[in-house]
Amino acid sequence: MKLTVLKEYLNESIQHVSKAISSKTTIPILTGIKIDVDSTGMTLTASDTDISIQSFIPMEKNEIQVIDLKQSGSVVLPSKFFVEIIRKLPAQHVEIEVKDHFQTTIRSGSSEIQLVGLDPEEYPIMPGIEENKSVQIPSDLLKTMIKQTSLAVSTNEATPILTGILWTIAGGKLKFTACDRHRLATRETNVDTDPDFTLNNISISGKTLNELSKILPDQNALIEIVFAENQVLFKMSNILFYTRILDGTYPDTSKLIPQAYQTELVVDTQKLTEAIDRAYLLSREEKTNIVKLVMREDSTLEISSSSSELGKVTEELDTFSLTGELLRISFNSKYMLDALKVMDSEQIQIGFTGAMQPIIIRPEEGANLLQLILPYRTTG
Amino acid sequence: MKLTVLKEYLNESIQHVSKAISSKTTIPILTGIKIDVDSTGMTLTASDTDISIQSFIPMEKNEIQVIDLKQSGSVVLPSKFFVEIIRKLPAQHVEIEVKDHFQTTIRSGSSEIQLVGLDPEEYPIMPGIEENKSVQIPSDLLKTMIKQTSLAVSTNEATPILTGILWTIAGGKLKFTACDRHRLATRETNVDTDPDFTLNNISISGKTLNELSKILPDQNALIEIVFAENQVLFKMSNILFYTRILDGTYPDTSKLIPQAYQTELVVDTQKLTEAIDRAYLLSREEKTNIVKLVMREDSTLEISSSSSELGKVTEELDTFSLTGELLRISFNSKYMLDALKVMDSEQIQIGFTGAMQPIIIRPEEGANLLQLILPYRTTG
Repeated sequence: MKLTVLKEYLNESIQHVSKAISSKTTIPILTGIKIDVDSTGMTLTASDTDISIQSFIPMEKNEIQVIDLKQSGSVVLPSKFFVEIIRKLPAQHVEIEVKDHFQTTIRSGSSEIQLVGLDPEEYPIMPGIEENKSVQIPSDLLKTMIKQTSLAVSTNEATPILTGILWTIAGGKLKFTACDRHRLATRETNVDTDPDFTLNNISISGKTLNELSKILPDQNALIEIVFAENQVLFKMSNILFYTRILDGTYPDTSKLIPQAYQTELVVDTQKLTEAIDRAYLLSREEKTNIVKLVMREDSTLEISSSSSELGKVTEELDTFSLTGELLRISFNSKYMLDALKVMDSEQIQIGFTGAMQPIIIRPEEGANLLQLILPYRTTG
Repeated sequence: MKLTVLKEYLNESIQHVSKAISSKTTIPILTGIKIDVDSTGMTLTASDTDISIQSFIPMEKNEIQVIDLKQSGSVVLPSKFFVEIIRKLPAQHVEIEVKDHFQTTIRSGSSEIQLVGLDPEEYPIMPGIEENKSVQIPSDLLKTMIKQTSLAVSTNEATPILTGILWTIAGGKLKFTACDRHRLATRETNVDTDPDFTLNNISISGKTLNELSKILPDQNALIEIVFAENQVLFKMSNILFYTRILDGTYPDTSKLIPQAYQTELVVDTQKLTEAIDRAYLLSREEKTNIVKLVMREDSTLEISSSSSELGKVTEELDTFSLTGELLRISFNSKYMLDALKVMDSEQIQIGFTGAMQPIIIRPEEGANLLQLILPYRTTG
């Protein structure tokens, strides 16, 4: 293998695939990045067995010659050092040459780096995925859906299935669901598929989807998502992102969401967020994050928290509307802040069915997004 | 005590004094910020016994009324919560009212915060400092001198005196010296004092001086520095910064610096820094940071590092001049990078007196700054 490649392109590819490298892997070959070069271009691969990422560098892009190929071939290079040194090379061109026993030489300007390469034959082969089940979603929308639901994913490894976001497709709608024992988030969108196409019990690690978010392009490109037996493949321009489907059966959460509310209010999203944030600051000192909401006759809200040692925060807030029974309800202010921060409308609706029942937060318009928080059982 | 103050000014003052608050203090009153209000303005004080910072907010500034005073008084408020809540208050004006038993109420817009205040009588009194020994230095210059020497301060608490920067004044020159067992940094400047004014054995914690740097104004204001028995006071506009002088006698380091060189070279600062940085990346993986410098007949340098597991980095570098005996010398590349990063000239001079003797790095012009690094004793 011998080629010259533009540093800028190589660097970008390395940054993409390096998100799949785990420092904790027990499989030595996976501490490396696999490089394959042929007449079509250069492919970089990294994997931690849960995630695998492939990034492709074409020979030419926008009429610029990116790669000057001398000889095809493959090698695996130690990722940690490789990632850092390429970024710091002095010249715009990087020459990579692999000789016997995968001894690799990297040259750029007045720098010469010798690297002990590993045998690419030892590197695991990427899963074969048939493209019979797939959908396409705009990149921005996918990022937003991940952000709006991943906050509710469980961090408790004792219930692995709940560390994922559940993907379901039915009737032309794609829905994300995430929940732990204290909260639930759902987000729905229309997708352009056969109305008979359904998808059940596909749960993908929330952490993995957050990693995916980081490499999803900012431009509103369509991302093709292919569902196979155990794997899901996200296809971006020049990047393939493979991830495992979590084992187990995702619980039915539909019954948790009330069908009608006893009390409903509409408030300014930002003002509520700021008021709860101040009450949260004090509640955090008590380690409980308990904040109390009291609804008043004059349709205003009192939001408060207190600490026996430090004192008390009291906030007053106007509502746009307040209907139904006036409640006093306590909740985890951190969870409420997480939910409020992913609301994408200036006003929000909050629905209650009693002081001990779930709190439902939705954007004022549009029923695509729902956040549910269980209240605290407190007295007074 | 009762007053209204503009949030922006209160916030700025809090940010300044909060640098003196230690979360590890065993003296409960020192977890608070002391507030004193009288007809001249508001003074905030914070201290961790090593450092004390006072910040003053005047009644008026630039013809804006900053404080509206209703009643003078003092209180100590719990710093952690106070610092955060003030920043997040909803309105531009903040009302602070202290009632019986130091119960404090803070009001801003629709927020009301009750805080359990502490008795200001329990707060330690700031050290009295006579102004008979003082110098004035421009803020920028003081920051630069701290940056250029603090890198060489010892982090080993077993020799407390070496965790400080030594300040000496003689013949109208102020000199900073810092050293640990492996390196030494000195920086000198002219100061406008009586030529008979001398200062010896004043060592001030490097950590403290770095904290001071953060609040030194960016505008090139003159900072007055007052030296007392055990304390040094830095006087900025509206801020007083007190710090302890370290106990013990600072060792004589003058004999460490060679008077003449066997080999001298001049190189481009940035190119040398980048070449050593690449060699450092590999040497770091070996935990030794060893980088080797070889001088060649043609006046070029070879800089290299190697790792038995990963490979080798080799860098070639031109010099502007290379005189004297050609050496091979090994050193800690991390220390070299630290020294190179504070050089303020495009070219630097490096002086050697043998492969086992100190390496001296200086800016190409100006003898005010000197960095010394001891080489590694290696074979080959």
